[in-house]
Amino acid sequence: MYKNKNCGEPNSKDIGSEVIVAGWVNKRRDHGNLIFIDLRDKSGVLQVVFNPEVSSDAHDLASNLRSEWVVQIKGVIVKRISGAENDSISTGSVELQANEIKILNKSKTPPFEISDEIEIDDQTRLAYRFIDLRRPKMQKLFTLRHKITKLIWDYLSDRDFTHIETPILLKSTPEGARDYVVPSRIHPGKFYALPQSPQQLKQILMVSGFDRYFQIARCFRDEDLRADRQPEHTQLDLEMSFVHQDDVMLLVEGLYKHITYEILGNNYKQNDKDFVRLSYEESIERFGTDKPDLRFGMELVTISEELKNTESNVFNHVLNQRGVIRGIVAPGAGHYDRKKTDELIDLAKSSGASGLVYILFDNNFDSIENIKDENYKSPLKKFLNVDVVKGLAKKMSAKPGDMILIVADQENKVNTVLSNLRNFLGEKLNLYDQKEIMFAWVYDFPLFEWDEDLKKWEPAHHVFSSPKTEHLDFLISDPGKVHADLFDLVCNGMEMGSGSIRIHDPNIQKKVFSIIGYKEEEIDDRFGQLIKAFSYGAPPHGGMGLGLDRFIATLAGEKAIREVIAFPKTQSAQDPLFDSPNKISNQQLEELFINLILPDEEEA
Amino acid sequence: MYKNKNCGEPNSKDIGSEVIVAGWVNKRRDHGNLIFIDLRDKSGVLQVVFNPEVSSDAHDLASNLRSEWVVQIKGVIVKRISGAENDSISTGSVELQANEIKILNKSKTPPFEISDEIEIDDQTRLAYRFIDLRRPKMQKLFTLRHKITKLIWDYLSDRDFTHIETPILLKSTPEGARDYVVPSRIHPGKFYALPQSPQQLKQILMVSGFDRYFQIARCFRDEDLRADRQPEHTQLDLEMSFVHQDDVMLLVEGLYKHITYEILGNNYKQNDKDFVRLSYEESIERFGTDKPDLRFGMELVTISEELKNTESNVFNHVLNQRGVIRGIVAPGAGHYDRKKTDELIDLAKSSGASGLVYILFDNNFDSIENIKDENYKSPLKKFLNVDVVKGLAKKMSAKPGDMILIVADQENKVNTVLSNLRNFLGEKLNLYDQKEIMFAWVYDFPLFEWDEDLKKWEPAHHVFSSPKTEHLDFLISDPGKVHADLFDLVCNGMEMGSGSIRIHDPNIQKKVFSIIGYKEEEIDDRFGQLIKAFSYGAPPHGGMGLGLDRFIATLAGEKAIREVIAFPKTQSAQDPLFDSPNKISNQQLEELFINLILPDEEEA
Repeated sequence: MYKNKNCGEPNSKDIGSEVIVAGWVNKRRDHGNLIFIDLRDKSGVLQVVFNPEVSSDAHDLASNLRSEWVVQIKGVIVKRISGAENDSISTGSVELQANEIKILNKSKTPPFEISDEIEIDDQTRLAYRFIDLRRPKMQKLFTLRHKITKLIWDYLSDRDFTHIETPILLKSTPEGARDYVVPSRIHPGKFYALPQSPQQLKQILMVSGFDRYFQIARCFRDEDLRADRQPEHTQLDLEMSFVHQDDVMLLVEGLYKHITYEILGNNYKQNDKDFVRLSYEESIERFGTDKPDLRFGMELVTISEELKNTESNVFNHVLNQRGVIRGIVAPGAGHYDRKKTDELIDLAKSSGASGLVYILFDNNFDSIENIKDENYKSPLKKFLNVDVVKGLAKKMSAKPGDMILIVADQENKVNTVLSNLRNFLGEKLNLYDQKEIMFAWVYDFPLFEWDEDLKKWEPAHHVFSSPKTEHLDFLISDPGKVHADLFDLVCNGMEMGSGSIRIHDPNIQKKVFSIIGYKEEEIDDRFGQLIKAFSYGAPPHGGMGLGLDRFIATLAGEKAIREVIAFPKTQSAQDPLFDSPNKISNQQLEELFINLILPDEEEA
Repeated sequence: MYKNKNCGEPNSKDIGSEVIVAGWVNKRRDHGNLIFIDLRDKSGVLQVVFNPEVSSDAHDLASNLRSEWVVQIKGVIVKRISGAENDSISTGSVELQANEIKILNKSKTPPFEISDEIEIDDQTRLAYRFIDLRRPKMQKLFTLRHKITKLIWDYLSDRDFTHIETPILLKSTPEGARDYVVPSRIHPGKFYALPQSPQQLKQILMVSGFDRYFQIARCFRDEDLRADRQPEHTQLDLEMSFVHQDDVMLLVEGLYKHITYEILGNNYKQNDKDFVRLSYEESIERFGTDKPDLRFGMELVTISEELKNTESNVFNHVLNQRGVIRGIVAPGAGHYDRKKTDELIDLAKSSGASGLVYILFDNNFDSIENIKDENYKSPLKKFLNVDVVKGLAKKMSAKPGDMILIVADQENKVNTVLSNLRNFLGEKLNLYDQKEIMFAWVYDFPLFEWDEDLKKWEPAHHVFSSPKTEHLDFLISDPGKVHADLFDLVCNGMEMGSGSIRIHDPNIQKKVFSIIGYKEEEIDDRFGQLIKAFSYGAPPHGGMGLGLDRFIATLAGEKAIREVIAFPKTQSAQDPLFDSPNKISNQQLEELFINLILPDEEEA
């Protein structure tokens, strides 16, 4: 070893002892005769002082040091002089008096400082990821990622789960997203595909008798790029045999509580409570979404009845078209000015609304009972007399100083718009602690969704979820009524993972395929292996796929999953450091029996 | 849950208690009025008895049961009648008296029995992998795999290693083997490549300051198929900063000892000894290979001197051509008949020898001193008089009843042939316990190998290994003399992994590239990211890549790594269950800007 102590370790107990440390020069400061450097490694920072009276050779060498040079230093730990202590670092009471220094490697001037305080654009960060990752924040994020993954291993191993690795080179069964494919050299014209998830594999493992499986699994999706998507992501994939929906939910709830508590400690306030459970229908009804953020209230209220007798065309038209009117109350937002209400209208429109009605309450009345005409403003005020507003406010529990937001449209759209407004306002109005973590279950999802464009049923989540036993008859009579043993884990308004009890009866599985309109050949091609396995004694089974990157980012208080991925790709699926993807040689193309057919602008 | 006990759990303490179990029907036996089934799950087997006097409904249902049906059974644990106990299973003293049975799923007749005793061809095993994996042996292998992987996580986490996931979608930098490539849909004509190992990534992680990294990493190689190779395999990948060769070796030695002892217990006899260390040169000298099997002796001995004065053309010709004569002693093989010696000659020839000379000693003499002409046989006997044979036998410590094997050729060939003969005879002659595990280190490998066909230097292992400091000058004067801080972990004659101290100086790295003959552009293309990283303060670092599948197979006593891979591919890189690789749609091809150019026979 080039060192016998890490930089972050020495403290007052080490005073007088000789140590050897190695690391990067974080900063150099010359104070007259003395040279100070902060030496950094993974464990922290140690102040080193070069005194020409202690060693003139070391002092001479130190005068050449530049940021990010790699050095090895031998010296004695001494107490810092009074007043020079630094409480913000673990070694702040001591410093290293250097006797010897060896320069292990030099460094060009880095493109940005190794500091958490600076702003750097993403392209530069990724092109110099090896510098970016040296920042203390990034070091902490990957230590956290390690810790969380280890906790998963420990928890599930203790509960008889077996970690089983499944293939990355598989077969293309596109579903939801496009597959990444890999041309075969040995089988001309054929391709492997990278799995979007190990779904069929883990179900086959249950048929193989493994009882309880998990995998920290890499999953691949060739998607058109949206914010914060990555071509490859990591999934905590798990599956259990002989279980009901509740067994899977309780297992995962235990695991996620355990991890969250281990990471956040007493800052995790939900720790001694059960996760809230909402049926899909209740979640939509109360929050307008199946991914409710339960850190705050502001629930959706249906107010069609209260508004059906106004003379507003907006409301009447919608109600005549079998639409609904629903609203939310933004507490304390009655003072919002034009700029702020315009922002809300823009958000409503970008969410699909044709408009947004708001009512702003001032604070000059003591209770809704006593509200007067001068106490509220609204663009639709002429249709909203005091009695109507009083009725609305009572139904919605609005208070003086609040704002009522109203959307009238078809139900799906109303819910989407209000849910987006609710999430936006919840954050804007500081209705919750940003650091709070609040998990919830949403269950009993519908199995199918009607695709109005294709005029056919599509799987709402995926094709493997089991219809609820009491809904089996609807498979034939009315697929839209079939709900499934299908559940999502939601946290702070984000989906953390999706699970279900799976179909294990090959005939029910075939029936589901046929409702979606898969032809015999297609079923055989995509799912033949699963149907075959189901014919040889498949146990009842169920499980979940949980986004690990998202979970880690959430616990770290990071919004973007790329912060917790060591070498993420850009929005255009590139790696600026490795410059991937890149061209391959003609020989490689030939060996794979493929030819490029480039669009015109690429051929030039 | 469909069960409150696993099948393998009930024992005499449970007698009288009511349990619910679920699993697969292993066997049904009708004994007059009583029906017995063995119910199987991951944990083991439980005998269930259906007595019409206990429940006629259950008895009726049970009479229909077939192998591999999935059932749930409720009943009472009772003591087996005296004489019916079965010591070979954990539940052998009890049985379940069934009150109720529910058929959860039926099964077609499986293509083979769920038993460790039967022989099945690989194609059938893989096509019905979900049946194959139900066999107790396979269940145990994957439990073992889980346990070993968990031990790695625990051991390395305890020693401050951080598990970091690196990308699967990377850039093609072919090296050693061909890359699997993935066409990009977003960047026409460009490709990702799947990593052959995370080598450059982990070195960049060291430059990023992570200090100690490990990863259970999937690695991909599009190789022409040899026995027991898989397109994807799992590597225990690790890297450490500020270390010397010995630090890496001791860390890995500690880890591998710990795991082996945890798995094998006192059957691991090497546990309290250090791994033997052999320099590359010593290993070649003594065993003819850099992958010596140290479970037995039978070392190679140079006998050029002893044979230089015979009149045999074979020997004289080789010595005149600067070749060598070396040999081994096969203890107790003096009785080998023509068939057995022919087998050895065939092996020698298939290993590249032009011939093999043997001398067979009978047992009719007490010591080599007293050997007479009638005591030995050899095809070359006319050139081998008693004095010569006596000299040989003394040099080689041969004893009455032994066989001496002699190969004369250029040194490399002699070593290869004798090493193969040694491994073959070591097993044939039962010179060691098949279950013994014996690790060793081979170190100080040469950095380059002269490629006689290409007339150029090639990397002996890989291009990132650091020349030994004292050999740096040879980089210019004589690359063949450069040895590196490069070491292999060897076990029972197999390479378990390879490691090295890496180059961290961009100039030395460039020098090594230039000796291999890489052009500037090529260096930039393949290694640009690493050279760039090295320019910004790279610490001294080193690490290893260790084949996890091979290690697990070795501890399990399995010869083939596909036994410890859940869904392995065949020798032609296919998966018979999923039928991968397979065709993709024209739309997929179009989206990827590629066209198939199939060989004639494929177009038909």
